[in-house]
Amino acid sequence: MTPLKIYGNANSGNCLKVKWTAEWLGLPYSWHEVDSFGGETRSPAYLAMFPMGQVPGVVFEDGRRLAQSNAIIRYLARGSALLPDDTFEAAHVDEWLFWEQYSHEPYIAVCRSQMLYRGISREERDPWRVERGEVALDLMERHLTSRHWLVGDGMTVADIALLAYSRVAHEGGFDLGQRPALRAWIARGETQLNLTQAA
Amino acid sequence: MTPLKIYGNANSGNCLKVKWTAEWLGLPYSWHEVDSFGGETRSPAYLAMFPMGQVPGVVFEDGRRLAQSNAIIRYLARGSALLPDDTFEAAHVDEWLFWEQYSHEPYIAVCRSQMLYRGISREERDPWRVERGEVALDLMERHLTSRHWLVGDGMTVADIALLAYSRVAHEGGFDLGQRPALRAWIARGETQLNLTQAA
Repeated sequence: MTPLKIYGNANSGNCLKVKWTAEWLGLPYSWHEVDSFGGETRSPAYLAMFPMGQVPGVVFEDGRRLAQSNAIIRYLARGSALLPDDTFEAAHVDEWLFWEQYSHEPYIAVCRSQMLYRGISREERDPWRVERGEVALDLMERHLTSRHWLVGDGMTVADIALLAYSRVAHEGGFDLGQRPALRAWIARGETQLNLTQAA
Repeated sequence: MTPLKIYGNANSGNCLKVKWTAEWLGLPYSWHEVDSFGGETRSPAYLAMFPMGQVPGVVFEDGRRLAQSNAIIRYLARGSALLPDDTFEAAHVDEWLFWEQYSHEPYIAVCRSQMLYRGISREERDPWRVERGEVALDLMERHLTSRHWLVGDGMTVADIALLAYSRVAHEGGFDLGQRPALRAWIARGETQLNLTQAA
């Protein structure tokens, strides 16, 4: 019996967020690889499950489905240390989750995807994506200079969400060399999540 | 005494989400206009309040601050009809909130901003933004064909978030003429929120 089915692509940080969260929480799951780069998320079968046509998506034991990586990890994390009980602290987690999807992922993850899978060189990246990606990493560096985790005193789903693409930012041509607080935070997250060092 | 200070730009749908939510909930607030187009969000004074450097931001009576439109409205709405008590229903609200910021706002709102404030013509819009914006509106049309609200039986913050730019999509060159379910949903939302018809 499989309580949780995760539909995702193993090369997508958005999908890995869900895998890492499930593993940290000790939730049994099965992984269903989706060829999102080959267009499988636009197939009728996939759209029937997840109309938004994106990975990841999860199916619970009772058949209920949920999409959007940050909505999924927030839901899975409720009642655990990954989501603060205090509603205002949880709102700060949300602040980072929304910032990640709007002000980080479209720059860091998209540059990485273009370099890894579309043969774009570092010099050929969209200048506006590079500029905004650098701004995002600078913001994280400043925030993490005086603290170990993004919100509160322990790892939350905000850290998991931001870790997904920050730890592979170099694959998108971003240099973490001058960002020691960010690198230390990445190492802390990788330790918590039992990940092999990516950098 | 002002319980809630909203820092925002009146031309920004992201900021209006917060205003509408506060008004629907009957929360007294004061509005602090920010010249985000003129760069005020990057001023030292603004960054000291809201390090992410974006509008909207709110300051509560006790001095605590929160940024990111969807994180703010989700927090304000807790315990009200705008956010379901059922955690899975609330997760579906989150699904739409994240989808809005990643798959709707960057296309619909950015095209509108470029046309209204940067002198770009309808024909000069980025083709990839136009294509993805059309996909987003089609998805909403399909979803709303069989239901009155995005999640459950009443208006939630998911509707408020999506309403902000869907109701002015025409200002970004998007045509709602062939999307009757979307138009009916916009009218319902405008009635609930006491907004003047925009279209």
